[in-house]
Amino acid sequence: MNIWRINTRTKQHSILDVPDAWKFLGGRGLLAKIMVDEVPPTCDPLGPNNKLIFAPGLLVGHRLSSLDRISIGGKSPLTRGIKEANAGGRTGFHLSHLGIKALIIEDQPKEFIWQIISINKEGVQFKEAGELVGQGVYTAAASLIEMYGEDVAIAMIGPSGEIKLRAAGIQNLDQDKTPSRIAARGGLGAVMGSKGIKAIVIDAEGGKQPPIFAPASFKEARKRFTIALVNHPQTTSYADFGTANMANLCNGFAGLPTRNFSQGTFEEVEKIAGEQLRAMLLERGERAKTTHACMAGCSIRCSNVVSDPGDDQVVVSPLEYETIGLMGSNLGIDDLDVIARLNREVNDLGLDSIEIGAALGIACEAGLMSFGDGDRALELIREIRTRTPLGRVLGNGAAITGQVYGIERVPVVKNQAISAYDPRAIKGTGVTYATSPQGADHTSGLTIRAKIKHTQPEGQVQVSRDAQLKMAGYDSLGACIFSSFGFADAPETISDLVNARYGTDFGIDLLKDLGREAINLEREFNRKAGFTTADDRVPEWMTREALPPHNTVFDVPEEELDSIFD
Amino acid sequence: MNIWRINTRTKQHSILDVPDAWKFLGGRGLLAKIMVDEVPPTCDPLGPNNKLIFAPGLLVGHRLSSLDRISIGGKSPLTRGIKEANAGGRTGFHLSHLGIKALIIEDQPKEFIWQIISINKEGVQFKEAGELVGQGVYTAAASLIEMYGEDVAIAMIGPSGEIKLRAAGIQNLDQDKTPSRIAARGGLGAVMGSKGIKAIVIDAEGGKQPPIFAPASFKEARKRFTIALVNHPQTTSYADFGTANMANLCNGFAGLPTRNFSQGTFEEVEKIAGEQLRAMLLERGERAKTTHACMAGCSIRCSNVVSDPGDDQVVVSPLEYETIGLMGSNLGIDDLDVIARLNREVNDLGLDSIEIGAALGIACEAGLMSFGDGDRALELIREIRTRTPLGRVLGNGAAITGQVYGIERVPVVKNQAISAYDPRAIKGTGVTYATSPQGADHTSGLTIRAKIKHTQPEGQVQVSRDAQLKMAGYDSLGACIFSSFGFADAPETISDLVNARYGTDFGIDLLKDLGREAINLEREFNRKAGFTTADDRVPEWMTREALPPHNTVFDVPEEELDSIFD
Repeated sequence: MNIWRINTRTKQHSILDVPDAWKFLGGRGLLAKIMVDEVPPTCDPLGPNNKLIFAPGLLVGHRLSSLDRISIGGKSPLTRGIKEANAGGRTGFHLSHLGIKALIIEDQPKEFIWQIISINKEGVQFKEAGELVGQGVYTAAASLIEMYGEDVAIAMIGPSGEIKLRAAGIQNLDQDKTPSRIAARGGLGAVMGSKGIKAIVIDAEGGKQPPIFAPASFKEARKRFTIALVNHPQTTSYADFGTANMANLCNGFAGLPTRNFSQGTFEEVEKIAGEQLRAMLLERGERAKTTHACMAGCSIRCSNVVSDPGDDQVVVSPLEYETIGLMGSNLGIDDLDVIARLNREVNDLGLDSIEIGAALGIACEAGLMSFGDGDRALELIREIRTRTPLGRVLGNGAAITGQVYGIERVPVVKNQAISAYDPRAIKGTGVTYATSPQGADHTSGLTIRAKIKHTQPEGQVQVSRDAQLKMAGYDSLGACIFSSFGFADAPETISDLVNARYGTDFGIDLLKDLGREAINLEREFNRKAGFTTADDRVPEWMTREALPPHNTVFDVPEEELDSIFD
Repeated sequence: MNIWRINTRTKQHSILDVPDAWKFLGGRGLLAKIMVDEVPPTCDPLGPNNKLIFAPGLLVGHRLSSLDRISIGGKSPLTRGIKEANAGGRTGFHLSHLGIKALIIEDQPKEFIWQIISINKEGVQFKEAGELVGQGVYTAAASLIEMYGEDVAIAMIGPSGEIKLRAAGIQNLDQDKTPSRIAARGGLGAVMGSKGIKAIVIDAEGGKQPPIFAPASFKEARKRFTIALVNHPQTTSYADFGTANMANLCNGFAGLPTRNFSQGTFEEVEKIAGEQLRAMLLERGERAKTTHACMAGCSIRCSNVVSDPGDDQVVVSPLEYETIGLMGSNLGIDDLDVIARLNREVNDLGLDSIEIGAALGIACEAGLMSFGDGDRALELIREIRTRTPLGRVLGNGAAITGQVYGIERVPVVKNQAISAYDPRAIKGTGVTYATSPQGADHTSGLTIRAKIKHTQPEGQVQVSRDAQLKMAGYDSLGACIFSSFGFADAPETISDLVNARYGTDFGIDLLKDLGREAINLEREFNRKAGFTTADDRVPEWMTREALPPHNTVFDVPEEELDSIFD
């Protein structure tokens, strides 16, 4: 495996040995290490000193179920701290088959002509992006596949990344060549845009699976992991209902963001919950799918495909809980087809649906739309496409929208929108939002399944810390959060797989050790970037304004927050 | 003297003794002490926990020349740190004659009906603002004077403060009852707006001069100070040319912001310099004035009155160098009448002309206007009045405008626009921008008259530190920066005046001691608000992009910046 560096100013690339200190790091942890080693923490995130890093996880490249994820990161223009966003799809797998342990995109062109970077076993080529510039990801991906072939992986930005909006993510192809596996959070699409890159096309032809030190042990551990995974009851539930299953659960805990986080329950929750989604998709034509895999080899298949009720054309894949929460209940919208159309639109623009959902919640608060008005929501998103001033504001996310419109009730931490678990109702996840180096992000440590009363302040810091360390570990392996269904029942398979792959002898604590190292590096970067405990807070109004119906505020003591990683 | 507190939610007020620890503080220093003692540093600046504080300086109330300034402050919604902005006019004098050492506006109404607060010797009254809401300050001030009488002082916000724009300041009446003495910087108008207050009217009738411990000594020290002031050559220069005199000086040092800080000299500088302004005003009708006092009793009279070349109606008073720099050369505009009209418009809206000039520079960079196009600049400012999305963006200042439009070349420190001295050419002032707790602000420590080669990095930290300590001292006395012409030649009069006023025995170091105490308190507040050395930096691009014609970058070492106040 090698480190590939591409300079976007000189258009030169280099293929280098992996430094010893990077060898047993991968994904999120490796990314954090590279950032600490190479990126000045106070740099302008959209300037030449920031880097855009692609790092497959430690176990990527073997079609282990839900274990081929790609970590993408850099300094976030949204949070101004370190950012790792990961995604399924093909990108991680293809990079690993070219022997790429990390791809580091550097510098910034002086003259701005949009480029496509293509990577294959011969090396790196630049090509002018031409008519692809300005195109949405659905159209542009189709053109790229025509140009580069059916089997490539693509990481690309939509129009939102081109104009450096802070809610812009990086879209990756799924196994069906749909560019909808987005490394969504923190504005990494703007970082890619700031380097003048519309798309990175990865052709792994002639490549090969990363080397395995002890193939027999690896095969045996894989088997144990897979059996544990497929036998876990949640695996079936996620196959049937997808993440949308979370809507009823979260509503039951009164933590479902509703009408700009003013309520924790949505009276129409049944219309947007997993059961309804499944029932709706079963009635649709053959293009609709209740279960679907984003990566080849996944046994869980939590994804889905929503097709149009009329012509059965695909609208969006997948429709996920976070989008349902932020663009549904948070906007007072109770129609899954409306939410799916909003989702398609933000996907095509290359935007984070959580951030835009939260920004639209602020837009409601500011009188720019009424809660429940899906047509107006679609109009507002289209303003992002047409680059109107309002569109640019919304496309920069909830915090800026709140600032521009003078709204106090803005649900962000470190400028990043809170996802679909209200921190006043699910307080452990609130602790994660507050203290994660990533800003508000449920994937940094969701606690909704922890055995704790979610509305009590006591014990939440420990629950969040455990979740954060585990998740940072999974993100370093390249593991989807749902692989934890398997690892929960066969935890020894984590070190067994890594040891078989690398010839190491890590013990049972490997997952948390990887997580701790990643988080420590991230905190080091953020500290040097100017973050302090003052940044580790939920919005002040959430400590004051009670959330109906439980009427709880966020009241985990600040001293506890500040000592979470001591 | 007393502390007056007004609660905007309960509409109650209280008149309290001055705590011992506050007794020998005034203006900026007192304000910092109150902030540290009472305001949670991480609070939402536009929420109920922030306070809006009015504190006359220690020597205010005696018509000492240029020594009746008012410090206004709170937590800034622009910088998110502590903010003190001071202004001339009547406000400080009137408050002091009611015995008010500090006026503290607290809390936030639940139901939002805009109020006028009137203060007189009977106490405090609230009155609904009615039709004044939405009015510019020129119209609203005239109505208020009709309602409350000719002799009141008024501190008020324009439409920009009402919609909580982060470039909104607080306008104060000058001695001619014109509401143009703005406590401009840091968005304090938005803080006042967030508390639902359109105007504070201060009627000092029946009030009296603050007590003087040793009247004879005071009178004698006043005489020495006044003689030193009127005999200083700069006093005459400022009377003749006003601050506009700085344009040629700064252009000579190649530090005049030109076309969004892309050049340090402006080829048309003669058209916007002090000599031209004087010549132009001398040719106008009788309403035009080359010299004018903002406060009664001022011997310098650096202000002016610009009238229309046609009908001699007053356009704006004063037209100052910072506005000429930021709305003139920075926008490539070389016509003083055009600049005066832009100035009137931002004044009426209650906006900081520095922040808006910088934001318009970004607008040029973003293709929203061409450099030199005054008509378009006026149109863009009018979008702020009509509250369009673009208007709201611009009205929130340069940093947000840059973020929304994805522009890297944004001249801000701590989110606040750099004023009219490019830090790459006047590096001592660059150090002030970087390290002042107030964000980029020349009034925190201008170094252009220091005897140092301004483009060398060496020695600038010391020059800036001296200037910052002195200015924080002057801001604590209630002294205009130009009072330093007198104090420079008779420095002992500072402690003589204070000792005579208060019966104290401060020594010759009083000015710097007051300054150090203020800055230490401000740094304490900011540290608790989450500021670190990472915030004490000029924009990264200014360390990389050379400023023509000297082609210098900002290169004062970071270690020196970080130890400036050790």
